[in-house]
Amino acid sequence: MNLNLMDKHQEIIDKAVQALHERTFFAQYPENPQPDVYGENADKEGREKYKTHLNSKFEELLQENPESWVGQEESPYEQQPLGVTYPFFSPETLVSRADEAYHQWRKVSPADRASLLVESLERMKTRFFEIAYATMHTTGQAYMMSFQASGPHAADRALEAIASGFEEQTRFPESTEWEKPMGKYNLKLNKSWRAVPKGVGLVIGCSTFPTWNTVPGMFASLVTGNPVIVKPHPKAVLPIAIVVAEVQKVLQENGLNPNICQLAVDADDRLITKDLAEHPKVKLIDYTGGNEFGNYVEGLPGKVTFTEKTGVNSIILDSMDDLDKVAQNLAFSVTLYSGQMCTAPQNFFVPETGVKVGGEQVPYEEVVEKIAGAVTALVNNPKAAPHILGAIQNPATTERLKGAKSANSREVLSSCDFENPVFANARTCTPVIYEVDATDKESYSRELFGPVVLIIKTKSTDQSIEIAKEMATNHGAISCGAYTTDSEIKEKIMDEMSLAGTPVSFNLTGGIYVNQNASFSDFHVTGGNPAGNASFTNPEFVIKRFTWVGFREPVQG
Amino acid sequence: MNLNLMDKHQEIIDKAVQALHERTFFAQYPENPQPDVYGENADKEGREKYKTHLNSKFEELLQENPESWVGQEESPYEQQPLGVTYPFFSPETLVSRADEAYHQWRKVSPADRASLLVESLERMKTRFFEIAYATMHTTGQAYMMSFQASGPHAADRALEAIASGFEEQTRFPESTEWEKPMGKYNLKLNKSWRAVPKGVGLVIGCSTFPTWNTVPGMFASLVTGNPVIVKPHPKAVLPIAIVVAEVQKVLQENGLNPNICQLAVDADDRLITKDLAEHPKVKLIDYTGGNEFGNYVEGLPGKVTFTEKTGVNSIILDSMDDLDKVAQNLAFSVTLYSGQMCTAPQNFFVPETGVKVGGEQVPYEEVVEKIAGAVTALVNNPKAAPHILGAIQNPATTERLKGAKSANSREVLSSCDFENPVFANARTCTPVIYEVDATDKESYSRELFGPVVLIIKTKSTDQSIEIAKEMATNHGAISCGAYTTDSEIKEKIMDEMSLAGTPVSFNLTGGIYVNQNASFSDFHVTGGNPAGNASFTNPEFVIKRFTWVGFREPVQG
Repeated sequence: MNLNLMDKHQEIIDKAVQALHERTFFAQYPENPQPDVYGENADKEGREKYKTHLNSKFEELLQENPESWVGQEESPYEQQPLGVTYPFFSPETLVSRADEAYHQWRKVSPADRASLLVESLERMKTRFFEIAYATMHTTGQAYMMSFQASGPHAADRALEAIASGFEEQTRFPESTEWEKPMGKYNLKLNKSWRAVPKGVGLVIGCSTFPTWNTVPGMFASLVTGNPVIVKPHPKAVLPIAIVVAEVQKVLQENGLNPNICQLAVDADDRLITKDLAEHPKVKLIDYTGGNEFGNYVEGLPGKVTFTEKTGVNSIILDSMDDLDKVAQNLAFSVTLYSGQMCTAPQNFFVPETGVKVGGEQVPYEEVVEKIAGAVTALVNNPKAAPHILGAIQNPATTERLKGAKSANSREVLSSCDFENPVFANARTCTPVIYEVDATDKESYSRELFGPVVLIIKTKSTDQSIEIAKEMATNHGAISCGAYTTDSEIKEKIMDEMSLAGTPVSFNLTGGIYVNQNASFSDFHVTGGNPAGNASFTNPEFVIKRFTWVGFREPVQG
Repeated sequence: MNLNLMDKHQEIIDKAVQALHERTFFAQYPENPQPDVYGENADKEGREKYKTHLNSKFEELLQENPESWVGQEESPYEQQPLGVTYPFFSPETLVSRADEAYHQWRKVSPADRASLLVESLERMKTRFFEIAYATMHTTGQAYMMSFQASGPHAADRALEAIASGFEEQTRFPESTEWEKPMGKYNLKLNKSWRAVPKGVGLVIGCSTFPTWNTVPGMFASLVTGNPVIVKPHPKAVLPIAIVVAEVQKVLQENGLNPNICQLAVDADDRLITKDLAEHPKVKLIDYTGGNEFGNYVEGLPGKVTFTEKTGVNSIILDSMDDLDKVAQNLAFSVTLYSGQMCTAPQNFFVPETGVKVGGEQVPYEEVVEKIAGAVTALVNNPKAAPHILGAIQNPATTERLKGAKSANSREVLSSCDFENPVFANARTCTPVIYEVDATDKESYSRELFGPVVLIIKTKSTDQSIEIAKEMATNHGAISCGAYTTDSEIKEKIMDEMSLAGTPVSFNLTGGIYVNQNASFSDFHVTGGNPAGNASFTNPEFVIKRFTWVGFREPVQG
């Protein structure tokens, strides 16, 4: 099937493939919501468009004959239901439609699939602001993060998956003539190969990053020829529903079955994820969320799974030039979206002898004070705090702050009620800091999702490294931050944390944070520890979605 | 660590990488045992060298302080023990030595690892004839297959894995400067990445192809920085022991720990495979053998596994130009090494209406007769038969021939005792052919390892395709042969068998057989059906053996 779309987007795809290999900065979709890029009225129109969805049926999807209309979203800023409803379909209907669409989609060439998918990202781009407001009012992210993470950053991660999938499928020849010298004659075979997609893909989204964590798996499965059922978290549907709708429209406009990409929403009284995941025709599962369900997904027989689960992220403090700058940087990292990020740091390891600052030893207590002081200053800054903290997606997160205190830990900084200046009903909280001893291992051997910092007093930097490695190896880790001016210690951290499959950011100060992760450059999640078995986007992320099958026949004559 | 070996073998590695991508004919190691390539006396010397091992300790390994000396091999040609004994080590000793070696090996660069491994293949080359005789007298393969499969073909598959592993580890930059425009300034980070090997690898060999099926996983794990424990089948140790010894010598000569690659042999009273496989430090397992143990291996938690298990390979007969040539080709395929190949065809689907030959319909019965006749002619050809049949590795295979007959099947050709002209005591048998109806599904839904052909009478070619696909999907398949002159039927077979993850050879006649599989061109096993989850050598085969871990730090100044 030749759709002649390739020419249109060839340049974008080529640049993206190049970026994958250079791993320097590359963004197809600018992260700044500035009018000269996105249009003078883009923000206003996006907000209005978002409002039209409220208390209405989401009727853009091209999936026919819904069994009912369902929706459970509510705004963490307003603490009231959005009232958006989505068509409901039984798992059997979803899978049988996906299976039918499979046999059309798998015959579209990788190049055409890549182009169609880039086209859908270009359409998504026109709705970045609408998606931003939908993200704010489902996840509780502040406006800027909602725009960037759900819009351009997500689209770039999707493009990354498209580029990688396109490259892997075209990396070997489609056909060749194989000629083997046999002495008296040459044996000649015509050979050809097909990259055969595995089957129906299921992508299970999370409540905090409804597009960013969903589109990599979704576009990776699609570009490799697998139909996809997108199953969002029931509390965060709208942002990804808009993306799915755009994909469906592009498919239909090009004469293809829109069920190649379906949205699957839980009904209030019928959760469908397990039925979908266990369906024999579902061959690929992408999952973002908690450990318990993630381990269940990984254990399903006969499935290829890609998971991002929970982890215990560490900060190792050894030595630095400027403690204030370090404290400010870390304060931002733990305050950003109230710590509701899989990359947010939790366990801060500080030696009992303190840290070296510009060659001078600064006592342990002072380090703790500086960090607490920086957090306090940030949450008390009315110009910054509301735009950094956002709101709390899930009431359970607020509850968790109290439970995070163990019998032997000391409260260094308590969480306070925080009044959002725009949304009086916003569900908010500010970071809490507890101090625990390294010996109290149980208290810090688990992810405390939300704005919880544990400062762990260790014997030495060597012990800090040892425990950070142990935590990552046994409980998973997605990020690690380290501060050291000593090149030997730096190499030791790199070596030990690499064995724990954990990327390390060194000596971050200023406008770059350990939580951040750049498409085309940073592999997100390594697959090397229990925090997940997949990585955006290394070649494994796409290769496992198809099978190489070869054919051969003697050359005639 | 820079060993300066790269220059020496750079050309071989570069050519091998190129061959992987062109997938045209490439062989670093010539398959013909001709004197002008391997030396005038190579065969004689190899045979003598082989004989020196008999009834002796194999003392070439550099693994120290064995607990005892063990060996259970016996020659299928002579039906008596070889008397070779190997050092025995407990699983705990093997794994702790491997783990120690890991921390040295992982720090050697991918380029140096690749060169050291190519060097070891070059040493292996000097022992191809010795390995050939060792293979004959453990597997029962005939001389030519023993030489080719265990020598040059195995070395080429090993080189393929080295080349692929080298390429995948060097495909992304080791470091880069990442510069992001932030409006008023540029944010600059130094980034670097490491391909971190997963840990101790275990390679579990089979009794019929002791080097060919072992070296791909072994060299794939090694080139990606993982130490390897090679656990051969207790009845086929010597061929791979020689390879391991050569690897160890190269490691030691270059100042490295020879325990980077260890041989692990079962004692008569102590089977060690499960203890090794279940050891928490063993992270990678390559396995070739039966389904039961293979499924156990695939189900082990916390391991990355690469399996090749059993399958039910089909031949689909629809239409052809010359039935005699087809029958001769198939007769060779089922007779070769008495069908003891994972790629040997078993289920021959013939429509009850017969097949079209040069446009004329030939009745079903005549097709069956032609095939039986061609097998009879081949096994009665004294010049050819002994060199094709070889001997039977395992007495259970001979037993299986009788058990293969179901209540409703008809014996078309019985197996006869075959006297090997050189080895009077050789354990031999010739192919048996049973005819069964397509409705008698149970009788052909399993692998009957050995020279067993089932001719299955179907309603039509469509039904032949349908059942061949079903067999591959449910019970696995590693090869498929099809004969058709109809391009629509050909496309249908390609499409259906590709969904079953099974490669298809079309219209083979003359000197090329469905059992054969060429390094650098044919992916061996697709991973797309129950016959195995791994493929020699697609990128997945090496990528899953290491983890990408990234590091980043602001550019100073």
